[in-house]
Amino acid sequence: MKAEIISVGTELLLGQIHDTNSSFIAKKLALLGIDVYFKTVAGDNSGRLKKVFKLASKRADLIIVSGGLGPTVDDITKETLAEFLGYQLVLDNKILKNIKNKFKKFKIKMPEGNIKQALVFGENCRILKNKLGTAPGFIVTKNKKIYIIMPGVPVEMKEMFDKYVVTYLKKQSPKEIIYSRILKVIGLPESQVNKMIKVQFENYTNPTVALLAIPAEIKIRLTAKGKNIRSVKADIRKVEKEMRNILGDHVFGADEETMESVLGRMLVENKKTIAFAESCTGGLVGNRMTEISGASEYFLGSMVCYANEVKHSVLGVKNQTLKKFGAVSPETALEMASGVKKKTGADIGLSITGIAGPTGGTKQKPVGLVYMGIVTGRFKKSYKFMFYGNRNMIKFQASQYAMNLARRFLLGILE
Amino acid sequence: MKAEIISVGTELLLGQIHDTNSSFIAKKLALLGIDVYFKTVAGDNSGRLKKVFKLASKRADLIIVSGGLGPTVDDITKETLAEFLGYQLVLDNKILKNIKNKFKKFKIKMPEGNIKQALVFGENCRILKNKLGTAPGFIVTKNKKIYIIMPGVPVEMKEMFDKYVVTYLKKQSPKEIIYSRILKVIGLPESQVNKMIKVQFENYTNPTVALLAIPAEIKIRLTAKGKNIRSVKADIRKVEKEMRNILGDHVFGADEETMESVLGRMLVENKKTIAFAESCTGGLVGNRMTEISGASEYFLGSMVCYANEVKHSVLGVKNQTLKKFGAVSPETALEMASGVKKKTGADIGLSITGIAGPTGGTKQKPVGLVYMGIVTGRFKKSYKFMFYGNRNMIKFQASQYAMNLARRFLLGILE
Repeated sequence: MKAEIISVGTELLLGQIHDTNSSFIAKKLALLGIDVYFKTVAGDNSGRLKKVFKLASKRADLIIVSGGLGPTVDDITKETLAEFLGYQLVLDNKILKNIKNKFKKFKIKMPEGNIKQALVFGENCRILKNKLGTAPGFIVTKNKKIYIIMPGVPVEMKEMFDKYVVTYLKKQSPKEIIYSRILKVIGLPESQVNKMIKVQFENYTNPTVALLAIPAEIKIRLTAKGKNIRSVKADIRKVEKEMRNILGDHVFGADEETMESVLGRMLVENKKTIAFAESCTGGLVGNRMTEISGASEYFLGSMVCYANEVKHSVLGVKNQTLKKFGAVSPETALEMASGVKKKTGADIGLSITGIAGPTGGTKQKPVGLVYMGIVTGRFKKSYKFMFYGNRNMIKFQASQYAMNLARRFLLGILE
Repeated sequence: MKAEIISVGTELLLGQIHDTNSSFIAKKLALLGIDVYFKTVAGDNSGRLKKVFKLASKRADLIIVSGGLGPTVDDITKETLAEFLGYQLVLDNKILKNIKNKFKKFKIKMPEGNIKQALVFGENCRILKNKLGTAPGFIVTKNKKIYIIMPGVPVEMKEMFDKYVVTYLKKQSPKEIIYSRILKVIGLPESQVNKMIKVQFENYTNPTVALLAIPAEIKIRLTAKGKNIRSVKADIRKVEKEMRNILGDHVFGADEETMESVLGRMLVENKKTIAFAESCTGGLVGNRMTEISGASEYFLGSMVCYANEVKHSVLGVKNQTLKKFGAVSPETALEMASGVKKKTGADIGLSITGIAGPTGGTKQKPVGLVYMGIVTGRFKKSYKFMFYGNRNMIKFQASQYAMNLARRFLLGILE
């Protein structure tokens, strides 16, 4: 089965929001073994949207559309599809009542515009309930082609897709499954990773290997095709094992795992607590650590001490150290780490101090220079890093490598 | 001039990365007055990509492509476009030398794959230098149609677009300019904003008015068309003034302004410093405050005190308070704010403590409940909030409303 994904909304053509819906849908379709050959974005224009439907119905069997089901005159997806298919739209009183009830809850009278959200296709139509909003979605079929239309609000679309569309599509039984696994690597430049796994990259066709790099995180994507999920997973497992042999501890996670989730899991396993002292990262490390539900089990806190006086008053960094070596120095980093460990009683104290830029750099201490300190019962050491890019990129890399230091410490490979 | 944007990459069809390039390009084209009617995503497949080029050349005058200029065999954009246009690709020795030099810098021998990045179109071709990577971009013309191809790496594409493509497109002199301005609103539900500005929404056709909402931030987009930038700006200014009259201080910023940039500017203007005590936001407030270069002028730090013991040891929250009222209470919020003000010497101490979920909620204190405290020289008060959504959404809303409290305090309207 070939699919085409269509996102509708003038705001997408004006570039004011990113089209995240189509990536979500594409990812899910890949897991279902459905090939996506094209994604199209069209505006809230009936004539052009009809042309897009026409083209899609020629080159795909399954057309998945999101956006344009709202209550305003701009929302024309359903009306346009009905026109294209030659189907009538009819009022569904049950849906209308549901919508009215949703407004009643908030003590608001339903605006007239919402009435049209209760219009359904007169034939070959299955209604997809919208738990989180007022616009239902639809699966409509004609001439063996399947059209699925869903609201554009990401949370509503995702809920609807996971709850109804996946089950529906599974029954359409595709012949081949596509399955991907991503390995995440830190501590090596992309070109070196490329070199180290090049043999695989050239010899293997299933799974195929691709590299995607963001600063401080190289993703190796293994994609396999096959008849069933067990065999594709086995194909991927085999190559993954070889990759891990080559790259060793530089592989820090896979798929949905993040540096913070991996570190969190390791802290739980090792029954250790951690606290951070952040300067240039400004709270990013704490924020990332607390993305994980249950972080309170191991994450005690993070002292974001931006001002030098606060490094002294909160963390106990000596004024002399700050004066003699500066805030961005191995000496300050170590005292910050010691200070936060002492202050919070954490097993591991970890500090980050550097210059995130774009201003504040000097020849001796350029933008991107970051020192980190780690202090535990038996281990105490500072590290120097040089990161590149803009302020956000430097902050991200620093947060990534800070957590990686703790990961490497827990692995017993920090030197 | 009508434009079509094409993004090339199988990873986009697999949904593994979002297509942010096309939003960037779309936004820039809107500013240049160039209409975008379609955006298409195609995979690294020559046959299908050629069909996409063919279709685009029929429905647009300007075709802008990103992705598929890399050194691997998967990268086929240039080759496919050349084939489609019937142009020869020829080796440019100057470019080849440049690429070799870039590798030399990192003491790496240029891999053979990179040679093809030095291939240029044999006719009607303008080369776009790539300062940040090895793949140059191209502007190629045929039969009055313009084809612009650029690398897919976002930073490389953006640099190239801003540096060369904008200037080139300005010379193509479009007839009509599209200009958008976004007003950002906090503290009102979307439906109420919709009601309050509905008169405008119905009566005005230029600018048009659209609402886009994320939790704790409603965006009102005003879009005007006109002959020149001065007249469209004037059209927008007029409506903006009316909107601001209606919505008052709920409008906290416009366009690229964020809550953190607005608060930062106000702190500088008022010569005040601020420090935060964060619990459930985990460092997000500090991270956002330090997204702004120069934040050190007013942001002293943020004490992320996740564990109760740390609320006591770092912020001096009384154990009795924690025991009697709990960590999520107005009493703890106030002591946290007082504590961080005292500890850091900031003019404003602001605290956030709540339940971000998904676990940890009770009937009395459900997920989403957040208390904040603000303590300044003459003002000391706690506030209760109830946020909705998942962990990240609750953290974001809490960070947004915390900064908004400080903003309202500085405006003198906090009650």
